[in-house]
Amino acid sequence: MGRDIDPRLAIVMSALVKHLHAFAKEVELTQEEWNFGIDFLTRTGQICSGERQEFILLSDTLGLSMLVDTINNRRPSGATENTVYGPFHVADAPVREMGATITLDGKGESCLFEGRVLDLQGNPIEGARVDVWSDNADGYYDVQQPGIQPKGNNRGIFITGPDGKYSFIGIKPVSYPIPDDGPVGKMLAAVGRHPYRPAHMHYLVTAPGFKTIVTHTFVGGDEYLESDAVFGVKKSLIAPFDRLEGEKTLWRSPFDFIMAPDTAGA
Amino acid sequence: MGRDIDPRLAIVMSALVKHLHAFAKEVELTQEEWNFGIDFLTRTGQICSGERQEFILLSDTLGLSMLVDTINNRRPSGATENTVYGPFHVADAPVREMGATITLDGKGESCLFEGRVLDLQGNPIEGARVDVWSDNADGYYDVQQPGIQPKGNNRGIFITGPDGKYSFIGIKPVSYPIPDDGPVGKMLAAVGRHPYRPAHMHYLVTAPGFKTIVTHTFVGGDEYLESDAVFGVKKSLIAPFDRLEGEKTLWRSPFDFIMAPDTAGA
Repeated sequence: MGRDIDPRLAIVMSALVKHLHAFAKEVELTQEEWNFGIDFLTRTGQICSGERQEFILLSDTLGLSMLVDTINNRRPSGATENTVYGPFHVADAPVREMGATITLDGKGESCLFEGRVLDLQGNPIEGARVDVWSDNADGYYDVQQPGIQPKGNNRGIFITGPDGKYSFIGIKPVSYPIPDDGPVGKMLAAVGRHPYRPAHMHYLVTAPGFKTIVTHTFVGGDEYLESDAVFGVKKSLIAPFDRLEGEKTLWRSPFDFIMAPDTAGA
Repeated sequence: MGRDIDPRLAIVMSALVKHLHAFAKEVELTQEEWNFGIDFLTRTGQICSGERQEFILLSDTLGLSMLVDTINNRRPSGATENTVYGPFHVADAPVREMGATITLDGKGESCLFEGRVLDLQGNPIEGARVDVWSDNADGYYDVQQPGIQPKGNNRGIFITGPDGKYSFIGIKPVSYPIPDDGPVGKMLAAVGRHPYRPAHMHYLVTAPGFKTIVTHTFVGGDEYLESDAVFGVKKSLIAPFDRLEGEKTLWRSPFDFIMAPDTAGA
């Protein structure tokens, strides 16, 4: 490498080459396996499009995405943990009134989601923005089915008041497979892994002065909790889904978001 | 991973994930660097076409291709070493008469290439197939310039007789840059590396009962011998290029190919 290059780039590239070579030496990579690898990466790049990011899928399914999140989002004990962001967030989700329904297609088992946004001392955070999105009862996000699902289906933003509370009506989400018709799907099949994610709600919680939370809540008891295709499950993120007897709304899922202060160097 | 999967695949994938994670942990890969990596791999895949293989270029420029070759082509002492194959071999090169000229475009400084194909004991190998290809005086292979260079320019196959000798007239090859208008070229520039390969002749030498040699001979004194963009240079492959005074042919480059026996498990 040259002398006047970016010092961080020099560190990253040196380590990348070192570990790449260590891998090839350890397994004594054959010429045929190298050929396969070149072809796999080429196919992975060529299936990418505006709506499809197969390299993110590859990173997710090899556990790299979760590792990078963990490296970069160390939190004090008690704060809500992060998990994978996923490809289905939209920037312009509708801001809805507290308690409103986010499910517009009428499908699925309705569920009351509620809780508080708190600081590490348990004080409510006013003005926190709780941005939520989930799949519909068929396992698809609205952006995956334009023209089939109403825009903004199972999606919304809620702003907390002085009590830090949030609540809305959605559905109990369902488990679904990640796109598995490409190279990554073939890789999963070859190593005997299924492509399913356990059912989850996505949350992006922001508040001035606090570290942004990018996370899910998972449905306890889901059959894929132990084998999430993208390794996103953390125990602290498994939320209760309680059956409500004799109510119009079938389920209730309480969950509090605990935000860490956004202090420099923390 | 599942239980009934290919055991070799299990070994390779486990090691791949282990080293990938070790890399990310060692450098504490940031989210921005991860984003850049995903985008880099995507661009590398998307520039690939029938005539362009950017992932091979990436493997070459990170030294992986040479490493895989070294792992898979251990030779007994004295045998001619391998180096990178490169993307410009063609399967249907013309078989030419011994001593014939392979340069069809009349460009460049003519050079007599000659030597013998021998076994490890120094005995000549009859019926060895010496398949040679090089760039022209402008630094391009014929397949890179269809319609500009004659088909088969600086390319030919020579079959040895009982004396094991080969000879042909070509040109003294010139150094040239690997394709550097894509992601790999940007990577090289970012780390302060040039894209040049030192001048070389390509050889694919085969003979029944012997291990195939995929190699180059390099022009001694080339300014890029110490900094080959694809790490292909080995000392034993640097050939003399002797100036011939008062001859129509300007240079003479002698080189013997020493073939190792193709014994099972060797």
